[in-house]
Amino acid sequence: MSDFCIKKKIYYHDTDAGGVVYYANYLKYMEEARTEHLHSFGVDVQEYIAKGILFAVVHVEADYKSPARYGDQITISSGIEEVGNASIHFVQEVKKDDKLLVRAKIVLVCITDKMRAQRIPEDLKEKYNARCK
Amino acid sequence: MSDFCIKKKIYYHDTDAGGVVYYANYLKYMEEARTEHLHSFGVDVQEYIAKGILFAVVHVEADYKSPARYGDQITISSGIEEVGNASIHFVQEVKKDDKLLVRAKIVLVCITDKMRAQRIPEDLKEKYNARCK
Amino acid sequence: MSDFCIKKKIYYHDTDAGGVVYYANYLKYMEEARTEHLHSFGVDVQEYIAKGILFAVVHVEADYKSPARYGDQITISSGIEEVGNASIHFVQEVKKDDKLLVRAKIVLVCITDKMRAQRIPEDLKEKYNARCK
Amino acid sequence: MSDFCIKKKIYYHDTDAGGVVYYANYLKYMEEARTEHLHSFGVDVQEYIAKGILFAVVHVEADYKSPARYGDQITISSGIEEVGNASIHFVQEVKKDDKLLVRAKIVLVCITDKMRAQRIPEDLKEKYNARCK
Repeated sequence: MSDFCIKKKIYYHDTDAGGVVYYANYLKYMEEARTEHLHSFGVDVQEYIAKGILFAVVHVEADYKSPARYGDQITISSGIEEVGNASIHFVQEVKKDDKLLVRAKIVLVCITDKMRAQRIPEDLKEKYNARCK
Repeated sequence: MSDFCIKKKIYYHDTDAGGVVYYANYLKYMEEARTEHLHSFGVDVQEYIAKGILFAVVHVEADYKSPARYGDQITISSGIEEVGNASIHFVQEVKKDDKLLVRAKIVLVCITDKMRAQRIPEDLKEKYNARCK
Repeated sequence: MSDFCIKKKIYYHDTDAGGVVYYANYLKYMEEARTEHLHSFGVDVQEYIAKGILFAVVHVEADYKSPARYGDQITISSGIEEVGNASIHFVQEVKKDDKLLVRAKIVLVCITDKMRAQRIPEDLKEKYNARCK
Repeated sequence: MSDFCIKKKIYYHDTDAGGVVYYANYLKYMEEARTEHLHSFGVDVQEYIAKGILFAVVHVEADYKSPARYGDQITISSGIEEVGNASIHFVQEVKKDDKLLVRAKIVLVCITDKMRAQRIPEDLKEKYNARCK
């Protein structure tokens, strides 16, 4: 499992009237971390899109332990548990300093621009194996 | 100027840590009101999209008078000031009961799916003139 | 298990560049359905907030089966599997006509406005038992 | 007028089914740029909030010239035109490389946590005058 992380600061638009980050917004930060994680080992999501290779989230399992608040600096990690024939299994954590805020498992599948399943491109697997295993 | 309105209830996802609706979110409600307003006189945005006729916001001028809060029931109106050759000028208000919360002028232009300017479809003008003038 | 649902139309602000509803946005619609579900048997979230009784999402498990698109009319259901001493377990589905788009289990816990766990109010349980069991 | 800017990359959650950044989302990036701009000359919005000094947007005037797309790197600038007795007038631009995408004037007023107008804190004016004029 490879580890990668991005940092983020919490602004008003991230929060809700409970004074904390709205629960759906963590999924946005996780998208950003996954994209940058893939980019870190040479996979450019934008180039794939141009070739009709898309990734769709099919499963989310998230545990919310503690909230982030306005002004907080948080870290969002992205680890890959498995690159299968048609899916990628991510494990992602949101932390404030060493405190775990949210932990999630996210499964993406590879699809065409007509939303049909397709195999994960070989070069993605190769790049992942070469740099992350 | 024709008037049309939709109603909306405020949930957590609409608000921010200030306890009120985040200022950008009113623009989402205004999109909904404009779409339903056009629909009310026979213009289906989705059908236009299928024909490569899109509308892009080019100008927003908004005055925020008073905030909406969690649980509030608000009304979002859409009025058309002018349908030009290539643009539509909307005037929109967000109210809670009789109290004005936000007032905005929004200008949309008609574009192709390649983002080039094009003339407003004749049938839009005709439908607008027939039912709203 | 009681069943309740709300309807919603998909606008531009709900979608992403993939042409479909962004995966995090379904969680917003689910919040709305849960709130209206509680309201349907006499529980007013806003009144609880005023008394320092809040609900925080602690667990989300969602399966995305098929996407919603611009202009779609969707239905979001809310069912309660269990009202525990400190938590409520929801099962929620998003459908377009009879087609299942997203299915989720969402667990909320009752907290104080200082974010400490507290017991679910007795009147919530009574109202739920009286009208939904 | 002082100039300050932040950089941002566009992800799926920023875009809509038109393939471009949703018009309301630029206002989120502008919030971030204003906050960091204030921070750059020693004004900490979070500390002010703790003292009951808040800022509310009362006016937005935005011209959308060209859209940002998935994967784009954009720059959001924040300039202050005027610090009045009760308001701050910002001029903000979103650019991709040298191309202007959005230009906005945003007016904020200083309010108490009960949403009443109050004077801009003297130390904000002093810090602004000392470092930016």
